[in-house]
Amino acid sequence: MKQYVIGIDFGTLSARAALFDVETGAQLAQSVAEYPHGVMSAQPDFALQDPRDYLWALQTVVKAVVADSGVAPESVAGIGLDCTASTVLPLDESGTPMCFQEQYRAEPHAYIKLWKHHGAQRQADRIAACAAGEPWLRRYGHQVSCEWLLPKVVETLDAAPQLYHDTDRFAEVGDWLVWRLTGRESHSACLAGYKAFWNEETGYPDDGFFARVDPRLSGIVGTKLSRKIVPTGSLAGHLTKETAAWLGLTERTAVTSALIDAHAALPSLGLVEQGQLLMIIGTSTCHIVMGEQLRAVPGISGAVKDGVAPDFYAYEAGQSAVGDIFDWFVKNCVPASYQQTAAERGVSLHALLQEKAVSLQVGESGLVALDWWNGNRSILSNADLSGAIFGLKLSTKPEELYRALLESTAYGARVILDAFTAGDVPVQQLFAAGGIPTKNPLLMQIYADVLGREIQVCAAEQSPALGSALYTAVAAGCYGSLREAVAAMVHPQMITYRPDAGRAAKYEKLFAIYKQLHDCLGAEHAEWMKQLKEL
Amino acid sequence: MKQYVIGIDFGTLSARAALFDVETGAQLAQSVAEYPHGVMSAQPDFALQDPRDYLWALQTVVKAVVADSGVAPESVAGIGLDCTASTVLPLDESGTPMCFQEQYRAEPHAYIKLWKHHGAQRQADRIAACAAGEPWLRRYGHQVSCEWLLPKVVETLDAAPQLYHDTDRFAEVGDWLVWRLTGRESHSACLAGYKAFWNEETGYPDDGFFARVDPRLSGIVGTKLSRKIVPTGSLAGHLTKETAAWLGLTERTAVTSALIDAHAALPSLGLVEQGQLLMIIGTSTCHIVMGEQLRAVPGISGAVKDGVAPDFYAYEAGQSAVGDIFDWFVKNCVPASYQQTAAERGVSLHALLQEKAVSLQVGESGLVALDWWNGNRSILSNADLSGAIFGLKLSTKPEELYRALLESTAYGARVILDAFTAGDVPVQQLFAAGGIPTKNPLLMQIYADVLGREIQVCAAEQSPALGSALYTAVAAGCYGSLREAVAAMVHPQMITYRPDAGRAAKYEKLFAIYKQLHDCLGAEHAEWMKQLKEL
Repeated sequence: MKQYVIGIDFGTLSARAALFDVETGAQLAQSVAEYPHGVMSAQPDFALQDPRDYLWALQTVVKAVVADSGVAPESVAGIGLDCTASTVLPLDESGTPMCFQEQYRAEPHAYIKLWKHHGAQRQADRIAACAAGEPWLRRYGHQVSCEWLLPKVVETLDAAPQLYHDTDRFAEVGDWLVWRLTGRESHSACLAGYKAFWNEETGYPDDGFFARVDPRLSGIVGTKLSRKIVPTGSLAGHLTKETAAWLGLTERTAVTSALIDAHAALPSLGLVEQGQLLMIIGTSTCHIVMGEQLRAVPGISGAVKDGVAPDFYAYEAGQSAVGDIFDWFVKNCVPASYQQTAAERGVSLHALLQEKAVSLQVGESGLVALDWWNGNRSILSNADLSGAIFGLKLSTKPEELYRALLESTAYGARVILDAFTAGDVPVQQLFAAGGIPTKNPLLMQIYADVLGREIQVCAAEQSPALGSALYTAVAAGCYGSLREAVAAMVHPQMITYRPDAGRAAKYEKLFAIYKQLHDCLGAEHAEWMKQLKEL
Repeated sequence: MKQYVIGIDFGTLSARAALFDVETGAQLAQSVAEYPHGVMSAQPDFALQDPRDYLWALQTVVKAVVADSGVAPESVAGIGLDCTASTVLPLDESGTPMCFQEQYRAEPHAYIKLWKHHGAQRQADRIAACAAGEPWLRRYGHQVSCEWLLPKVVETLDAAPQLYHDTDRFAEVGDWLVWRLTGRESHSACLAGYKAFWNEETGYPDDGFFARVDPRLSGIVGTKLSRKIVPTGSLAGHLTKETAAWLGLTERTAVTSALIDAHAALPSLGLVEQGQLLMIIGTSTCHIVMGEQLRAVPGISGAVKDGVAPDFYAYEAGQSAVGDIFDWFVKNCVPASYQQTAAERGVSLHALLQEKAVSLQVGESGLVALDWWNGNRSILSNADLSGAIFGLKLSTKPEELYRALLESTAYGARVILDAFTAGDVPVQQLFAAGGIPTKNPLLMQIYADVLGREIQVCAAEQSPALGSALYTAVAAGCYGSLREAVAAMVHPQMITYRPDAGRAAKYEKLFAIYKQLHDCLGAEHAEWMKQLKEL
């Protein structure tokens, strides 16, 4: 009997499933479901979600791909999922979200804190102060992001101590979903490794560290933080009778431990070797590259052994807002006359702005922006930073601002690439995937010019779901290794963007100014933007 | 026979005349004419005008106020005019604009260079270098603005040496118009004093200074720069037979030497005492205050004896763009949804944004802007600076940006006020006039809160034309002094804005951040924005 695997990608606003032929990698069906409640914001900096949305989306998309593909439920060998990371929620001992309890229905901290929930900066600062000098901190670029698991947990301890007390486990959403599907608790090594200070050599930090952060955290490891950690993408179990019925599948369906959504993209594009840096560019950008050696790269978060592919350390960096900045601009800053032109010509505002911006010369507008609309993850790891635009004149046009925002995210990527190079993590090839690169060729050409390197862009809409499915094909016994599964099932098509020497030379100068502003406002005088935020 | 005087105010885009009863100051008629060609820009930074527009507007508005008021031409005792300053043009020996000559019709430098023509920054830098250490430079706050007469003249020498050679006089537009009306050349002391390095004690700089700037400038004083300088607002002559016929008036009509438009506003509001600081807020802002002593105030341009009212030194400072910034924003950065709401409710976008911005708390948006969209005149005197916005977030709304721009101009005014105080030029009272204060009460409340002082705003549309008319009433012999004319003819109505202690305290903190950014990007690292502009 032919066999199939399902990969499910849980994004920020929706879940997307795809069903693949295990032999050829052919995608037979896909389905997307948006979370009904989207992102909820109880107060500024908050980004919460309802766990019910994830369960509803999971059931919806799995049923849809099975129905649409017409395959027999018993031919589905496995399900694998990937998820945004640093997206955490509190659970009781049965793995049920605390917000399902009547007494916590109105408690914001009982819901899912999405990766971009930024309410825990104060806690991150405290943790960073207590972690200074700890040997494991070098794996995180000597930085603590307020997006990670522990700051979010400490925020709950500070703001809702009773909820903290009643919680049995703090978990990543991906791990919670796998627990729910299999009935067995396990936590994926990549989620624990990248976001919860765990590593394969020394485990979690020692209790003294937690007690220094807050005496009430003493004893957290093994209780509210689980030690049940399993390799990324390995067999976590099988569907229970209940969940098999709920999804219309069978109890023979294997389930793999959760991947980080960004990491799942690498194998899905055939990238399982060191030195291949992938930028996944969507609302935000995640940069991942693998290396043979463990290096401490300042400002780069997470270096986890076997984090993406076996035998390599996987390094991760991030830009907290990219597509989000362009969308903000189009929604808030484009005048009615442009909207009218776009409507008359039947194109999107994005398309109209790209068309106008593409003919601008590099540096012509005299604008440069700092791409910190949602703080800065790499390499400054500071959620208190905010965006800035310099060089505004009375003659400044919307398309010039738009292009300056595209460029600012390229400069942000350049800072990260330079950090890898300086930190002795070699980058031989650049790849880009995600929702934006295929839609915005101007952006990709700017990246090639600013980075001064060729960039290979995934030609078709990229499918992290395939990445999860590849691991699942291995876990279900269809292949002996990830490399074998990739060789058989992955057939990526790439478009290459090459830098133009003239534009690249001008961008060198603009980047030098960006870097000076970056260092001045992001490091030397980071207190200015912090004070602005606190007012 | 009852007597009347006409004041004419030549602004950036239009001329406005008003006819007043000499006895009561009652305004019997007014008329506005826009310059047909507006502002012409041959290349970036250029702002040129056609002298024909000024002549056409002069004739149009004078004939209109005489006709509309119904007064007899022979009862018009005098005409006085004020004009934007640093608005200069080259003339032949008869006082005819060089651009009227066929050979210079296509030469941009043969036209009027408007005050906001910014093509001479390089020349201003050279002049500043050569002027370092000169005793007269302290009157200009030790700064040389690219807007002043000499940089514009040297720009012509550099770019169009034959035109420079053929030119007999470089003159301010106001002085040229008075020459044209009276048939006699004279140059107003305030224009020469504020904009051409002349002063009542030592005259122009010595020839050695000019020769250091460029050997070809040697001998310029007494040739291309006239020594025929007369007191501001004094009797310059009478209409010639030709110009009387051209305007429909008589040869008995007195004509006074030109005022700077901003200065004319002070007597028109009854301000003829020291320590009364007037902000004239329009597309740009001019700050004027009089003091008894000559002080060197860093970054403040021009300290001219009798510059505005007899016996006082008049100090002038400026913000190069104020209303221009708000207009830029409304034109380029407000989304269609806002435009639609404004249209549905029948209000302007400005009004809609004010309504939304007024309910924002101070500091709520976390935004702060540097108000340098058209460079910075005071106190940095640097046309290479450009605007900047800090604190941008994905949640930033158009009304927050709009309010941040209003606030940024208040911070700019605060820097100027602080410079006067630090420079020992006391400021006892604050006044505001111009096109914007009456239209934008939110702006005036923000100014009161940011400056932490009461501000008295001229309730009716302010009329610099009255200021020129007051001098003319004195010059025509109707009054013995300016104070007497003011006492009889001026009846200003003021609205008082008072600071709110709570908001003022928050603005102290925001201003501290503005000032740090101002010093960092405007002084310490001014080269960054210069480099941006040069790219």
